[in-house]
Amino acid sequence: MNVDFLIVGAGFTGMVLAERLSNELGASCLIVDRRGHLGGNAYDEYDDHGVLVHKYGPHYFRTDKPAVRDYLGRFTEWRPAHYQILAWTRGRYWRFPINLNTFEQLIGRPATEEEFKAHLASVRVPISQPANSEEVIVSQVGWELYEMFFKGYTQKQWRKSPAELDASVCARIPIRTNRDDRYLRESFQAIPAAGYTRMFERMLAACQRTMVLFHADYHAVRQHVSYRKLIFTGAIDEYYDYRAGVLPYRSLRFEREHFTAEQLAARQAVAGKAGFWQPALQVNYPNEFDYTRIVEVKHVTGQTCDNTTIVREYPLDYQRGGEAYYPVPDATSPRQYQAYAEIAARDPHVYFAGRLATYRYYNMDQVVDAALSLAEQIKADWRAGARRVA
Amino acid sequence: MNVDFLIVGAGFTGMVLAERLSNELGASCLIVDRRGHLGGNAYDEYDDHGVLVHKYGPHYFRTDKPAVRDYLGRFTEWRPAHYQILAWTRGRYWRFPINLNTFEQLIGRPATEEEFKAHLASVRVPISQPANSEEVIVSQVGWELYEMFFKGYTQKQWRKSPAELDASVCARIPIRTNRDDRYLRESFQAIPAAGYTRMFERMLAACQRTMVLFHADYHAVRQHVSYRKLIFTGAIDEYYDYRAGVLPYRSLRFEREHFTAEQLAARQAVAGKAGFWQPALQVNYPNEFDYTRIVEVKHVTGQTCDNTTIVREYPLDYQRGGEAYYPVPDATSPRQYQAYAEIAARDPHVYFAGRLATYRYYNMDQVVDAALSLAEQIKADWRAGARRVA
Repeated sequence: MNVDFLIVGAGFTGMVLAERLSNELGASCLIVDRRGHLGGNAYDEYDDHGVLVHKYGPHYFRTDKPAVRDYLGRFTEWRPAHYQILAWTRGRYWRFPINLNTFEQLIGRPATEEEFKAHLASVRVPISQPANSEEVIVSQVGWELYEMFFKGYTQKQWRKSPAELDASVCARIPIRTNRDDRYLRESFQAIPAAGYTRMFERMLAACQRTMVLFHADYHAVRQHVSYRKLIFTGAIDEYYDYRAGVLPYRSLRFEREHFTAEQLAARQAVAGKAGFWQPALQVNYPNEFDYTRIVEVKHVTGQTCDNTTIVREYPLDYQRGGEAYYPVPDATSPRQYQAYAEIAARDPHVYFAGRLATYRYYNMDQVVDAALSLAEQIKADWRAGARRVA
Repeated sequence: MNVDFLIVGAGFTGMVLAERLSNELGASCLIVDRRGHLGGNAYDEYDDHGVLVHKYGPHYFRTDKPAVRDYLGRFTEWRPAHYQILAWTRGRYWRFPINLNTFEQLIGRPATEEEFKAHLASVRVPISQPANSEEVIVSQVGWELYEMFFKGYTQKQWRKSPAELDASVCARIPIRTNRDDRYLRESFQAIPAAGYTRMFERMLAACQRTMVLFHADYHAVRQHVSYRKLIFTGAIDEYYDYRAGVLPYRSLRFEREHFTAEQLAARQAVAGKAGFWQPALQVNYPNEFDYTRIVEVKHVTGQTCDNTTIVREYPLDYQRGGEAYYPVPDATSPRQYQAYAEIAARDPHVYFAGRLATYRYYNMDQVVDAALSLAEQIKADWRAGARRVA
């Protein structure tokens, strides 16, 4: 086959680039993916019981970038979303992330913001420059709240103590002394009204001259496709045949459980409303069970069915060839990636883009923003006739 | 690219053949489809409101062939289905197909089977060898029932008078003097419990060494793929570049309308239950409106949502390149197809299979049955080393 762009990966990065390049350059594209669907890990689907679920873990879209919102808005309507997270430990649900409501639950009576601030001042561990995730949290809220909400969760998630992890890992969770319990800070918080998959289908429908090859491994098809430029959004270590080692990742296993309306009747006191299993979109389990969280995405999809599906999330050691979810944020992994980045910089044949190819934990809006920027760069290169490949 | 089988079309025929040949011969397959999904016209999808709909018209699975049921049963659970059809005319719903209940509605009081038989004997037109669809019906039920239920519907559907159409067109609708109002006769009537699309996804997942190329035209990719055998399930006239003319088809336009739970409250008296718009899966409109029928497939999918989507079906003249739904069952079309069948018989390079390639109105089980038989033939050819193509 003969195309202008061979794009490996049908996730956000690949889809944005196919749409931009096919429409703005009139270029032909072939998107190749090992899976049988669009959207990469953002793919959602109706399960066997008709409940819309996020197949590869929950995707909470949010952004402060109007350009990203508006670009994706060409392919979807938005449904405003309140991403409510609770934590379950000591036999009850806790308001989370930590805020004044959590403090009131802890002391068992109403309290003021000043009282909570005074409490935190009395328990926090004075550390001027927190060097890791444990220090970041205990320096703000002391040992009890750290152990209630952070220590066990982080240990399960990463199979490392927070003391071994970069400060940024736990620092991304807000801690507030007022009653604001929003988990995310961004000004625009919404999900595609008809789901992510439908949005990707519309992106593809908007592409000119773009074919999609599913269940296909890049390595198996590369010699059969002639292309002018390659855009690779897969794992960079795999692209280079692991010549600088296997990049460290954490993986996940998802376990779905479905409940009929009848089964849910018994949960109504817990969930607070009919048709749901738990009281919020996400409940973290920092200290009990082998899973880190249970997500009931129906809380934000707006589905009106009387049944529901919850998904338990079990952290999993990553092995080469498995599903790579999170780059490991420790001291050594950036150096390991750097070795690949240096090889890639000397390789004029490929544009590497996206989460796996740049070894980054990207939010969705960051991925889209980066892909839109790269599209501009590729367009400029293309028009300059540069970086031609065979 | 280099594969054993190039399969054009990802509908029932293409999917069954890919599954059989990849698993039984260990052959590699590339399935090519212009659309962006599996399943051909049997594809179903959740619409923007989360209601499962049959995108290309309703598909009522039924069979008398246990082998077909069991083969598909490897890839889906079954949900028993009661395919209830009503007709709407003279300002009310009528039991359909014509049976004793319909007769009671007509005369406005209870009646016996004998009474109905006597009525039919008095109104039927004596024709010993009905030569067309009009004669087939009036010879059974006379002019009034023919005009109430058949004449206008057929005229709309085919844009021809029943008198111009083969007797088989209307003869497929049963007429009974007892109270049996089943539309379909087959012993097994059920739909894939999680939908047709999910069943096709499972078939694909079961395929070995099978890639799927979407949004791709066979003519554009043929020279870039090397294959040993071609299986073509598209339109045979298009394959031969219309050299013997455009085969006549009827086409359809589908118009969806969605109703929220609130909007449905006002319809409850009509629908007979909450969450539905009409009282049955399908309502025919023989004499009023431009559409032939309204289908509310939620009646058989078993979805428990409180909203619904109905689909109005408008017959449409077919034009070359449009969606070809029904071969036209008149006197001339078989001859037109025969010209292509003769060309194909002299063409050792291709297996033609499925509804479009054989110019037949197939039910789903017939398609699957034919594909399973063809798989056996291809396996035999393959093992004999025959029909090798470049």
